[in-house]
Amino acid sequence: MPPRTTLPADVSSTSFARALGELRGVVGAAYVLAEDEQLVPYRKLMIPAAEEDHQPSGAILPASVQHVQGVLSVCNRYKIPVWPISTGRNLGYGSAAPATSGQLILDLKRMDRILEVDPVLCTALVEPGVTYQQLHDYLRDRNIALWLDFPGDGPLVGPLGNTLERGTGSTPYGDHFAECCGMEVVLADGRVLRTGMGSLPRSASWQVFKYGYGPYLDGLFTQSNFAVVTKLGLWLMPAPVAYRTLLVQYPDDQGLAKGVETARPLRLSGTIRNPCRLSNATWMLTAFMRRAELYQGSGPVPDDVILAAARQHGIAPWSLTFTLYGTPEQIAPSLDIATRAFESSGAQIVTDYHDGSQANELNLSSFSLLNWVGGGGLVWLAPVSPARGSDAVRQRDIAKSILSMHGMDYLAAPTVYGRDLHHLTAVLFDHGDPQALERARACFRDLATTFADNGYGLHRVGVDFMDEVARTYGETRRDVNRALKRALDPNGILAPGKSGIHR
Amino acid sequence: MPPRTTLPADVSSTSFARALGELRGVVGAAYVLAEDEQLVPYRKLMIPAAEEDHQPSGAILPASVQHVQGVLSVCNRYKIPVWPISTGRNLGYGSAAPATSGQLILDLKRMDRILEVDPVLCTALVEPGVTYQQLHDYLRDRNIALWLDFPGDGPLVGPLGNTLERGTGSTPYGDHFAECCGMEVVLADGRVLRTGMGSLPRSASWQVFKYGYGPYLDGLFTQSNFAVVTKLGLWLMPAPVAYRTLLVQYPDDQGLAKGVETARPLRLSGTIRNPCRLSNATWMLTAFMRRAELYQGSGPVPDDVILAAARQHGIAPWSLTFTLYGTPEQIAPSLDIATRAFESSGAQIVTDYHDGSQANELNLSSFSLLNWVGGGGLVWLAPVSPARGSDAVRQRDIAKSILSMHGMDYLAAPTVYGRDLHHLTAVLFDHGDPQALERARACFRDLATTFADNGYGLHRVGVDFMDEVARTYGETRRDVNRALKRALDPNGILAPGKSGIHR
Repeated sequence: MPPRTTLPADVSSTSFARALGELRGVVGAAYVLAEDEQLVPYRKLMIPAAEEDHQPSGAILPASVQHVQGVLSVCNRYKIPVWPISTGRNLGYGSAAPATSGQLILDLKRMDRILEVDPVLCTALVEPGVTYQQLHDYLRDRNIALWLDFPGDGPLVGPLGNTLERGTGSTPYGDHFAECCGMEVVLADGRVLRTGMGSLPRSASWQVFKYGYGPYLDGLFTQSNFAVVTKLGLWLMPAPVAYRTLLVQYPDDQGLAKGVETARPLRLSGTIRNPCRLSNATWMLTAFMRRAELYQGSGPVPDDVILAAARQHGIAPWSLTFTLYGTPEQIAPSLDIATRAFESSGAQIVTDYHDGSQANELNLSSFSLLNWVGGGGLVWLAPVSPARGSDAVRQRDIAKSILSMHGMDYLAAPTVYGRDLHHLTAVLFDHGDPQALERARACFRDLATTFADNGYGLHRVGVDFMDEVARTYGETRRDVNRALKRALDPNGILAPGKSGIHR
Repeated sequence: MPPRTTLPADVSSTSFARALGELRGVVGAAYVLAEDEQLVPYRKLMIPAAEEDHQPSGAILPASVQHVQGVLSVCNRYKIPVWPISTGRNLGYGSAAPATSGQLILDLKRMDRILEVDPVLCTALVEPGVTYQQLHDYLRDRNIALWLDFPGDGPLVGPLGNTLERGTGSTPYGDHFAECCGMEVVLADGRVLRTGMGSLPRSASWQVFKYGYGPYLDGLFTQSNFAVVTKLGLWLMPAPVAYRTLLVQYPDDQGLAKGVETARPLRLSGTIRNPCRLSNATWMLTAFMRRAELYQGSGPVPDDVILAAARQHGIAPWSLTFTLYGTPEQIAPSLDIATRAFESSGAQIVTDYHDGSQANELNLSSFSLLNWVGGGGLVWLAPVSPARGSDAVRQRDIAKSILSMHGMDYLAAPTVYGRDLHHLTAVLFDHGDPQALERARACFRDLATTFADNGYGLHRVGVDFMDEVARTYGETRRDVNRALKRALDPNGILAPGKSGIHR
């Protein structure tokens, strides 16, 4: 039995025990986890939150859609909330932990089939537990010339979970929700809906046309708790004949604004087709050293110390990378246009840079960030702004001053997706140090609030800040979310608290 | 007073008269139309439907969001259904007419402000009544180098209505819903919701980032009746430095499959960025002649007659057009790749073709289709399939045999959008001839049913076939639509029957 404190709200321990018994009947006893030590992997947090606020009451591992239906049926009867996860590695956003304590983790990792890959139409259909590594290996083993787009924690996580969180990557398919096509979802009442063209009998168009007929519903099932998504269609990028990754280096801090102003028109004209990621020197330095090797004082590492170390490693104050894809003949004129544009803005260009994330090479290189401070604490901050230099600078000033006030470094990768910029910022801390954790928590709250007050909303946030961020989007929006929630999940058993949506 | 038969269901004439009185108080007496002759423009149909099945009970023309709120408040109290239209020219799909008789047309054409155009971020914010012509003129008058993407009936219609119907166009921005960003909607209860980043106070990101935080809702408000959309954000294409439109001509009927098979990989590699539209000879011939000039027999014009006439006008059995955009240096290698690919597939290429719809030139050239038969009858059929030659041929065979059985010609523009193909087919008839209308109606029903039976669903359909098409997508889907409808519009006053969604 789990400790009493982690029971779902308003469910007695007797009732909960009885529900677990029924759930064992659904998925098999081995796949209902309720012992304290069995739940350790579901509790582990990197974000600065108190573990006791995000305690699961147990975990259940269905192996099929029928299992999921059976689980929801039991949970509806007992009013036990479930928190669906796919790989459970929503790192920097809450990993596998539920938004509120007492939820039963619905761990979908056993549902890990790659159901279809169509090399002609360049599509795939996957279950929740499929990882990017698994899909990558599948394509390589069969010599299928399709590329994947994955987030920073690539190999570990999977396309279904990342897409539902509206994660992003680094190739022309970097907007993961934009590149998915067709879902199968299990509704709270156990009914199975295939979206788009998927509910038409004998349709061969489920993975090729998103919208179907009538309201286009897929967006409803992202960052939400309206259903359990059990299959997801993906669009995959045909491997280009060639590609060329560029590193743009700016000699001073004006590189942020200049990089944004130069990248945006190149993105919008189609000359550059993938997101343009800027990185500041501190972000880049994490690949070479740890903070403690550089500075032992209190407060953030001083700018001149960072810049001196950066220089030693050939790192510019601001760097920007992007890749050109196509045939060599197609790449040449675009390389010329982009090079001239960035050079005119005062940058130096390295035309043969390597960044695996822009070219279908799965790796964990972005994990070097975690070594900077050490201790495994990470929370992502991703405020949105128009892709304008002035906005990027304003965001930088806000982030840097607040981080600095809390004694923390500014590590940022502001990324131009098109008309929008996400000022991706890593808040790093020693998770084992309660004071550091508390400081990170206060700092994040301060950042999130100040950004929102300045009109820069967060587009994704960890399980401990969902209500706060939802509040910044206003009461009407929350009321609409609630109305939809009641319509699709009247007992509120699916992931209460997700994106600030409660029953 | 309108004739009794057009009253809303379950609303007495006394009650209706009282409601109209209150509505006059909201929008002014001049903007409440209830006289028979005032309603003529709202009744006019091109589709093969009986006017008496789509009779409005009146029309009301609000000038502001406050007016819309006031109207919905009255209509909720009296349970009077409203049918929102923007320009009311949903030609070939029902024009301004409601799905069921008795609805009050909520004509939004007076709300016609272009609220913002941002030439740097390449965005616009428009009201429902704004037409493509108006926006085109606005940009031209101010020398703003942004292009519009518009549907075939371009100048007459508007971006808000067309996007909500998930209309398409001919440039790289041809998927209109994909290129919209941020909505303002008035909910049935009068509350105003701004989607995406729009509900965050002081946000400057409403028109640059679609998804916001939490479930992405915009898809909900397309092809649906869940709210009244009063503002829409648009992404506009920066005018390219240059462009080159190609005409690909296939010498025989195999051109359909070959065109699709050649276009798809070029679209997916990014070499071609706009939709590739195929057209059969009959479709192309409509620009040069009327059917009666060619053939007076019964049944469809025989293939050999079409082909002989086509030859005289330099028209191939199958043609395909697309445009390359960029600098001349960027266009050159893509031109080379595309030309070689299409030539290898057996086509001849004209490299300096002109098609205004692919290059920001608004015109009504596609209206020449209507002259083929004459008499103003048109209904569009747009079944979806994977972009595979074999599917396109199977669709062609289905369409041609059914049309032929009903004595009608096959006029088709199968378009490769990417992984999907829409087999756009024009069913043309003399609307003034009751027998022809009845034949077109039977033919359309036969086509829609047979396509669905073969797994090819329609993605958009006229007001007289919405229930039938919704049914092909299955009962679970309809139940979900109904649940959402009840959540957002409990009295069912918004556009009952739209996309087959009733209360």
